[in-house]
Amino acid sequence: MHSFENDYSEGAHPLLLRALIESNETQQKGYGSDEYCAAARGKIRAETGMPQADVEFLVGGTQTNQVVISSLLQPFEGVISVTSGHIAVHEAGAIEATGHKVIEVPHENGKLSAAFLARYLRDFYAEQIYDHCVQPGMVYITYPTEYGTLYSKKELSDLYAVCKKYSLPLYIDGARLGYGLEAEGTDVTMRDIVRLCDVLCIGGTKMGALAGEAVVFCGMKKPRGFLTSVKQRGALLAKGRLLGVQFDALFTDGLYYKIGKEANLKARRIMSALTEKGYKPYLTSPTNQQFVVVSNEQCAEWEKHMRVCRFQILNENELVVRFVTDWSTTDRDVDELIRLF
Amino acid sequence: MHSFENDYSEGAHPLLLRALIESNETQQKGYGSDEYCAAARGKIRAETGMPQADVEFLVGGTQTNQVVISSLLQPFEGVISVTSGHIAVHEAGAIEATGHKVIEVPHENGKLSAAFLARYLRDFYAEQIYDHCVQPGMVYITYPTEYGTLYSKKELSDLYAVCKKYSLPLYIDGARLGYGLEAEGTDVTMRDIVRLCDVLCIGGTKMGALAGEAVVFCGMKKPRGFLTSVKQRGALLAKGRLLGVQFDALFTDGLYYKIGKEANLKARRIMSALTEKGYKPYLTSPTNQQFVVVSNEQCAEWEKHMRVCRFQILNENELVVRFVTDWSTTDRDVDELIRLF
Amino acid sequence: MHSFENDYSEGAHPLLLRALIESNETQQKGYGSDEYCAAARGKIRAETGMPQADVEFLVGGTQTNQVVISSLLQPFEGVISVTSGHIAVHEAGAIEATGHKVIEVPHENGKLSAAFLARYLRDFYAEQIYDHCVQPGMVYITYPTEYGTLYSKKELSDLYAVCKKYSLPLYIDGARLGYGLEAEGTDVTMRDIVRLCDVLCIGGTKMGALAGEAVVFCGMKKPRGFLTSVKQRGALLAKGRLLGVQFDALFTDGLYYKIGKEANLKARRIMSALTEKGYKPYLTSPTNQQFVVVSNEQCAEWEKHMRVCRFQILNENELVVRFVTDWSTTDRDVDELIRLF
Amino acid sequence: MHSFENDYSEGAHPLLLRALIESNETQQKGYGSDEYCAAARGKIRAETGMPQADVEFLVGGTQTNQVVISSLLQPFEGVISVTSGHIAVHEAGAIEATGHKVIEVPHENGKLSAAFLARYLRDFYAEQIYDHCVQPGMVYITYPTEYGTLYSKKELSDLYAVCKKYSLPLYIDGARLGYGLEAEGTDVTMRDIVRLCDVLCIGGTKMGALAGEAVVFCGMKKPRGFLTSVKQRGALLAKGRLLGVQFDALFTDGLYYKIGKEANLKARRIMSALTEKGYKPYLTSPTNQQFVVVSNEQCAEWEKHMRVCRFQILNENELVVRFVTDWSTTDRDVDELIRLF
Repeated sequence: MHSFENDYSEGAHPLLLRALIESNETQQKGYGSDEYCAAARGKIRAETGMPQADVEFLVGGTQTNQVVISSLLQPFEGVISVTSGHIAVHEAGAIEATGHKVIEVPHENGKLSAAFLARYLRDFYAEQIYDHCVQPGMVYITYPTEYGTLYSKKELSDLYAVCKKYSLPLYIDGARLGYGLEAEGTDVTMRDIVRLCDVLCIGGTKMGALAGEAVVFCGMKKPRGFLTSVKQRGALLAKGRLLGVQFDALFTDGLYYKIGKEANLKARRIMSALTEKGYKPYLTSPTNQQFVVVSNEQCAEWEKHMRVCRFQILNENELVVRFVTDWSTTDRDVDELIRLF
Repeated sequence: MHSFENDYSEGAHPLLLRALIESNETQQKGYGSDEYCAAARGKIRAETGMPQADVEFLVGGTQTNQVVISSLLQPFEGVISVTSGHIAVHEAGAIEATGHKVIEVPHENGKLSAAFLARYLRDFYAEQIYDHCVQPGMVYITYPTEYGTLYSKKELSDLYAVCKKYSLPLYIDGARLGYGLEAEGTDVTMRDIVRLCDVLCIGGTKMGALAGEAVVFCGMKKPRGFLTSVKQRGALLAKGRLLGVQFDALFTDGLYYKIGKEANLKARRIMSALTEKGYKPYLTSPTNQQFVVVSNEQCAEWEKHMRVCRFQILNENELVVRFVTDWSTTDRDVDELIRLF
Repeated sequence: MHSFENDYSEGAHPLLLRALIESNETQQKGYGSDEYCAAARGKIRAETGMPQADVEFLVGGTQTNQVVISSLLQPFEGVISVTSGHIAVHEAGAIEATGHKVIEVPHENGKLSAAFLARYLRDFYAEQIYDHCVQPGMVYITYPTEYGTLYSKKELSDLYAVCKKYSLPLYIDGARLGYGLEAEGTDVTMRDIVRLCDVLCIGGTKMGALAGEAVVFCGMKKPRGFLTSVKQRGALLAKGRLLGVQFDALFTDGLYYKIGKEANLKARRIMSALTEKGYKPYLTSPTNQQFVVVSNEQCAEWEKHMRVCRFQILNENELVVRFVTDWSTTDRDVDELIRLF
Repeated sequence: MHSFENDYSEGAHPLLLRALIESNETQQKGYGSDEYCAAARGKIRAETGMPQADVEFLVGGTQTNQVVISSLLQPFEGVISVTSGHIAVHEAGAIEATGHKVIEVPHENGKLSAAFLARYLRDFYAEQIYDHCVQPGMVYITYPTEYGTLYSKKELSDLYAVCKKYSLPLYIDGARLGYGLEAEGTDVTMRDIVRLCDVLCIGGTKMGALAGEAVVFCGMKKPRGFLTSVKQRGALLAKGRLLGVQFDALFTDGLYYKIGKEANLKARRIMSALTEKGYKPYLTSPTNQQFVVVSNEQCAEWEKHMRVCRFQILNENELVVRFVTDWSTTDRDVDELIRLF
């Protein structure tokens, strides 16, 4: 039985694996200065329509957030995130470990509202002793969010406008970016998103790579000393080619988008089947993660047949279960799953 | 016009100043190993009924919280505090600067409820990937709270029981401890409080000292290497005598309590006058800080006559104003203030 | 022309690549709890003769040093390293970024002498105000060292004895361990080394893996909360299988040692040819790194034909050049190189 | 018997104490925004001939170094200091605790040589992978040094020129500045020193204050968010007046210089007596600290009569003893001491 627990259960997408095999015995410079990273950089620049953008490759998501955020903040500043943001919950305090507070604010279906942020910042600076507080230094959001939801172009534009008003860089963690860009009904493209933030992380691991995240400095230049910062946080891979080769493949012939699109279709099939059977969605997600409210008993029953992601405890009797699809999910896998509902 | 903005507007209580004058020209060892610190340690041990307790003197409150908390936590742990806790709001990220998250939970009139904490911890460990999260490593509360409120003996006992159940040290920040211990209606004494927590900070600055906080390790021994940690955080005073002399005086003939008691009486007079005039208390505080809801206009009017502490913005039209008394407040000062209401 | 610049210019050793291909489409749990990590753990335990040892897999060397060292130190402690130690020079301050000083002491051909360490520690604690100093909390060495040199069993035993006397854990960074264990003339085996330290890092990246380091807690249990610490430092790979698969292969049929042995042989051929041609070795290394003193002109001449590692500037006219071999170096590559001398 | 162990054994200079008494019952704003801090700021600006300089008051020296250095460095940068520098040895890793390496370089009688620094920086940037190293971000020196020695105006100018060439701010820790400025034979005045560095700390504690250091941003503006940084490091005193009052007094009628001058004279008398008796100076110090080489037996003999500062262990038989004078040292105290030699 295929597991729908997450989108990193299998190895590399076959095309990435093939690229790794083919490139394996060329000699390359280390630390991201190899030819594959150069090629991947070029493709990402083309894809984003930003021929001058600084593009860097890091290994994992937590590490990427840690490096980017600690590079952009002054020591007395913190990063604003919704309470459900990945850095606020599931990164074991990686940001605080660099000396910075994650300033947690409420979310709406995983999203940060521009109106809320505007109010929050206005009130912050209106307080008498705001300089005894951690100063907001940047804003962090995820796209898609932890709940698989998306910002519309309007929502993102409004948010970015508030950030600009207060001179706060906006950083978008796109660990699952491809699923977002290919979601049914979204009006945000890759070219849009890089124009609506200052730094974007294009996720690889959850999009079919063995490991790897691409950081694009789209609204700003990369900070001085960035390579040294990457090294300092233990995020500089000696064989940086591992990342370059894979991102090169991901951005060849639209593979990145295809992976997103197909996984989304399968996710939709799962949710349709669930709602048909009378299960209650926790919320509406147009991407590869689907969330359903079930009883403890139902969850235990499912666990007899597969690995289940117990995403969130709701109350004594109910929890949210998450089903996730990725490049490795086949229609047959979905059929088998649906039969168990 | 006397200012009721805070409890640190004047210098030292006259008896502390006299002690400083009298001790000034004796030669003493540095860094807290002087005779005055020794004497003060002895008095605090007697007062708390804990003849073996480790007692250390630090300069300021933020610094004390920083040293104590960073000394007790493992790198992967955070400290639980209510959202209104001093470390969560008004210490400029001092805890995060040492690499630790302040795990913020809701407050009830500034207090952390034992029932809430129990539920929170139970749910935390029930989550599937709790080891991807900052682990709770200790609990921080203030006594009195930022809103001047107090825990009853029962509330404190319940809270400490939850902490013990999860092996989390409980640290009480008593920056205004004396006001709390002398509050009308409280059933918590100094001897109680040291038995209901692991570490206690006995505040000096807001109780009449020029500077100084006493840390009492009451439920545990002080951590190994504590002096080096104090030094590392820039909190080791060369002329540690400054702290010893003042705490020695504060704990001579019950001065610490007298200061608390008299300031509380004056604070109560202020709140009585305010309510008589129809002002709405923000909440009920039995200690030296009183909080009242007023319109922006009213506040601006008062500011023509005195310095006012704008404590919190409530909405577009209203805010919370705080009135604070201390050793330097006279009945005449209160009379003058009341006349302005 | 093959480059001898370093031991991480090519991808994965063919047997590791094959293992990755074969395992690619099995579904596995994330974060190092997969079957391949389990198998690799088992093989390393067998290899070290420590069936109970905690073994964890991390991505890179700097990251591994950062996680291990910050997990073992108290906040007021530092790690002792020779000035040429990797953490002291080439990790961009990764240790300091976690709040700890690297206490630098002199090296002898890259090594820390037991006699020096004993004297250093005795004097440290003899100083009057040693508690105003960073306290030594552990000892870090590399094996082989940055200069390719090795400790004899006697040297290592003596060093470990000093560490034990002062209760300082000894951590060995074996980024190139396989080359050390297979060096001609060494009397230290894998079973020896794990008995002569508390924590050992078995390097993967420089031994033929795409990425990966194995941490073995041989003289102690892994610290409480280690997984959370790994996560916090951005070192927890979602697809941890990438590491498990490779280490499983490295410790199948003695591959790890074979890689070391063969690379050492080729390195020896290079140094023989150099000395025959009259070049001066910088020092004697029995492992896969060879260091030779050359004039700036000679170096520039070589650079016309290949990438050269300018290891260290000696003076205005001379520098140290390093030649490195690895699994990908063939005898024919060596022949071609030698022809250029 | 008067102790010559250090310059912080007694309380406040009588004129400072008087100022504290006189100001005690005025009400002042908190956190350094009081009238006394304003007055002291004005006097320091006049004294340094820099009417626009930012001047801030902090409590202690370690804390001041921690705040200033962590405010000026980027995360990937370290601070250059000689191995004997206070931050490198006796601040318990306060700088590393903020995430930054102290890049230690050799000293000459406690001083950093401009020629050495120039060479060091040239070589640093000439290395192939210097961006894998902590980047030099600023330079720290003490004036007088830990050995009581002084830079000449030429030496300081040369050093500052090197710093400027590499865009590295120069920070001078003048914990004992007054003794330096009044040393016999020095050609450096207060107006010189502020023109030869970017940030200067004017020490108070060791110059007669109970506590307090003044930071003068002379070659640059204070960094953005400095107050919040001060708060974050636990260095913001609620009753900031304590610092303002004392610095106001120190810079009234040249008191700061008088204290320095008279203490230096007494120190010179001590060293004259020592050399007359045949003791060997460790080096030549023109300031209030004098260093003499003595046998262990001699030191033990002296310790029967007074507290002795065992400054440094030289070898099995000899150590360096330090004698220190300050405002509280009388000629009679010196007479008594000399009789014991």
